[in-house]
Amino acid sequence: MARSTRSPVASAPSAANNGLLDRRLFLASGLAVMGAVAGGGLTGSSPGDVQAADLPDVPTWMQYPGAPFGTYGVPAKYESKVTRTLIRSQPGTTGSGASRTPLEMLDGMITPSGLHFERHHSGVPGIDPAQHRLLIHGMVKRPLIFDIDTLLRYPMVSRIHFMECSGNSQLMYGATPPALRAGELHGLVSCSEWTGVPLRMLLDEAGADPAASWLLAEGADSAAMSRSVPMAKARDDALIALYQNGERLRPENGYPVRLFLPGYEGNMSVKWLRRIKVTSAPTMTKDETSKYTDLQADGKSLMFTYPMNVKSVITRPSPGLAMPAAGLYEVSGIAWSGDGAIVKVEVSTDGGQTWAEAMLSAPVLPRALTRFRIPWKWQGASAVLKSRATDSTGEVQSTREHLVAEHGNNAVFHYNAIQAWSVSESGEVKNVYA
Amino acid sequence: MARSTRSPVASAPSAANNGLLDRRLFLASGLAVMGAVAGGGLTGSSPGDVQAADLPDVPTWMQYPGAPFGTYGVPAKYESKVTRTLIRSQPGTTGSGASRTPLEMLDGMITPSGLHFERHHSGVPGIDPAQHRLLIHGMVKRPLIFDIDTLLRYPMVSRIHFMECSGNSQLMYGATPPALRAGELHGLVSCSEWTGVPLRMLLDEAGADPAASWLLAEGADSAAMSRSVPMAKARDDALIALYQNGERLRPENGYPVRLFLPGYEGNMSVKWLRRIKVTSAPTMTKDETSKYTDLQADGKSLMFTYPMNVKSVITRPSPGLAMPAAGLYEVSGIAWSGDGAIVKVEVSTDGGQTWAEAMLSAPVLPRALTRFRIPWKWQGASAVLKSRATDSTGEVQSTREHLVAEHGNNAVFHYNAIQAWSVSESGEVKNVYA
Repeated sequence: MARSTRSPVASAPSAANNGLLDRRLFLASGLAVMGAVAGGGLTGSSPGDVQAADLPDVPTWMQYPGAPFGTYGVPAKYESKVTRTLIRSQPGTTGSGASRTPLEMLDGMITPSGLHFERHHSGVPGIDPAQHRLLIHGMVKRPLIFDIDTLLRYPMVSRIHFMECSGNSQLMYGATPPALRAGELHGLVSCSEWTGVPLRMLLDEAGADPAASWLLAEGADSAAMSRSVPMAKARDDALIALYQNGERLRPENGYPVRLFLPGYEGNMSVKWLRRIKVTSAPTMTKDETSKYTDLQADGKSLMFTYPMNVKSVITRPSPGLAMPAAGLYEVSGIAWSGDGAIVKVEVSTDGGQTWAEAMLSAPVLPRALTRFRIPWKWQGASAVLKSRATDSTGEVQSTREHLVAEHGNNAVFHYNAIQAWSVSESGEVKNVYA
Repeated sequence: MARSTRSPVASAPSAANNGLLDRRLFLASGLAVMGAVAGGGLTGSSPGDVQAADLPDVPTWMQYPGAPFGTYGVPAKYESKVTRTLIRSQPGTTGSGASRTPLEMLDGMITPSGLHFERHHSGVPGIDPAQHRLLIHGMVKRPLIFDIDTLLRYPMVSRIHFMECSGNSQLMYGATPPALRAGELHGLVSCSEWTGVPLRMLLDEAGADPAASWLLAEGADSAAMSRSVPMAKARDDALIALYQNGERLRPENGYPVRLFLPGYEGNMSVKWLRRIKVTSAPTMTKDETSKYTDLQADGKSLMFTYPMNVKSVITRPSPGLAMPAAGLYEVSGIAWSGDGAIVKVEVSTDGGQTWAEAMLSAPVLPRALTRFRIPWKWQGASAVLKSRATDSTGEVQSTREHLVAEHGNNAVFHYNAIQAWSVSESGEVKNVYA
């Protein structure tokens, strides 16, 4: 009996140098991609008829009834290493800092809620939903207080959107490329289906002053994390979010209620939302003056840089996921833009000299993660992989060199340059500046 | 300060009798829907300026740092009642039977994996992925055995699809309407993003005989659950699924690998897949002769009734979710079809005499749950709510009366009639045949 073994795809059309093949290759019906990808340690042998003796042994788990039903399921114990990456909390705290989504272990566009990244400024408050209130006040005709049961009866909308911390990928501003995995570098981005009440509706109900051009959103964590939000965004697509991936928000994502501002830097989507104050100007909170401003090379800071710009990263192959042998592989990754939908992702395996367009996995939605895929016939030589996304506003990811030249090395936020992974002849994948 | 209180939406256009309003009502910018939905127990008072004293007290959870980061998140303890509904296992077993998704507690289109319904024939096998093998044999040129690491390196596709057990809603064939919640009645349907290898690709690699028109799929549970699958479906959109909602499959959903046949009755998407045999005819397994055939009134059975036909259910309001007082509500629910995409959902609040079209929440995808919503101004009189879905093939849900007249009361599978909920003057919601 044959085990699946590698062999070249002899007639596949080339789409760029160094082995990138047409993105539609794998869609072709009737295409024989025998041993499309080599399995590590698999041995090839001649095909032959399967005899009864060739059937796999009946494994232990087929010999006895399996486990009973569960009220709420969890991952298999064999997947216990697939966790958020915990970076040490800030000194003297246990809940201030961030944990990251293990992007290289996932596939598709949805992030399971248990692996959604976390960024907290003073831990996760244990809010009793029966006691929580949301106040809308300031420049309004009718200040209103909502309890959660009331909010749950309002009309809702559901949308699939990414959430990205503005500090995502910040280590890439450093002078040497960090030897980290894709999720450790770029895993402060996740994607969920969010369901909630359009904020516009509550502002209308409160009778927000048409002259008010800003609002303040305040969280019920012990940091009272607070940000100013332009009224235009609040009235456009902002949600008072109550559900994430079908169920009520998780505690670390703002339970029982959070603000959600599609495409904007994550911390503006204030979690554990307790107060919205309608104002005539930004409030200049500690969280938007001492943090979340973009320090430039000249010592000045950019403020109110809200949308997370077009970005992509190859998640497979990537550091930690070695390529066992030459052969046909799928290069797969995620792309996103806070300014709209992804319209194109190009992939290079020769360090950016030539590019081929990847396939985008439907549905391609605005301000949502978009999975891209392209076949690659790796010849076993060293290579440098890159992906470059373009969004519906025409913005294209720039090189790291260009981004650093523009913003300097002091910057912390809004890193969105092209990511390069080197592949060695032995199949090891590393983060490189190239 | 005003608390959010109910008041009529005086000028809203009517879309059908008995208070159904235009589905776009809640999208109108600038619409003042003050007190759109009444909060139970909220008291109205005159609006006024908010004084410092009016701010909610600083709650306990703002006075101390919150909980630390977690490697894998779980729902809030206050949501501990949101579980699958466990129906007693079949006599003498702990893992044979079904558990249901609590549809009335969820919103959006994605089902969190922890709440995906379960249907097992002999419990959940505890499969070690390093030992698991998938065999493809029968009418093939090259029988192949795959281990999981090899499958994980194949090209993948991702798609959002519902999965429905063919026995879903079977209690509704009974003579009296069961006094159960929406999830207890209809919760053998869930929706996830599934990622996997197109089965077509593996069949091509094995060199499946073009004359072979069927295959057998066998699971590695101790029931060796087995079904025959038409080759046309296997070569169309069948997946060898490895990921669910971004992460690897959950044990109860087939970890480490399952077959996934979009739109077909759930048990054909064989979990814990260990064997695919290419054949010239259906194998007539125990699971497709003793079960999963549709017994008709005349004693004959329909076999191989694969697609789950067009269906919908209103999840809010529904039994267990009482309506506290007259006022403006959102009627919300889910619709789906194994034959294609949902193109229309109509809602009636007068027992089906008049209908209004509901809003469908984007993205509307083929063979996926589709969320629908429509505003309803409930006047406080008794009412009967119904939803009626139409799919892209033109199929429309029929009445229960019509379905039972066609298939009799012996039937167990493929129940997809229009669901009716009665609302009493006190706001109690009940399952009725109407």
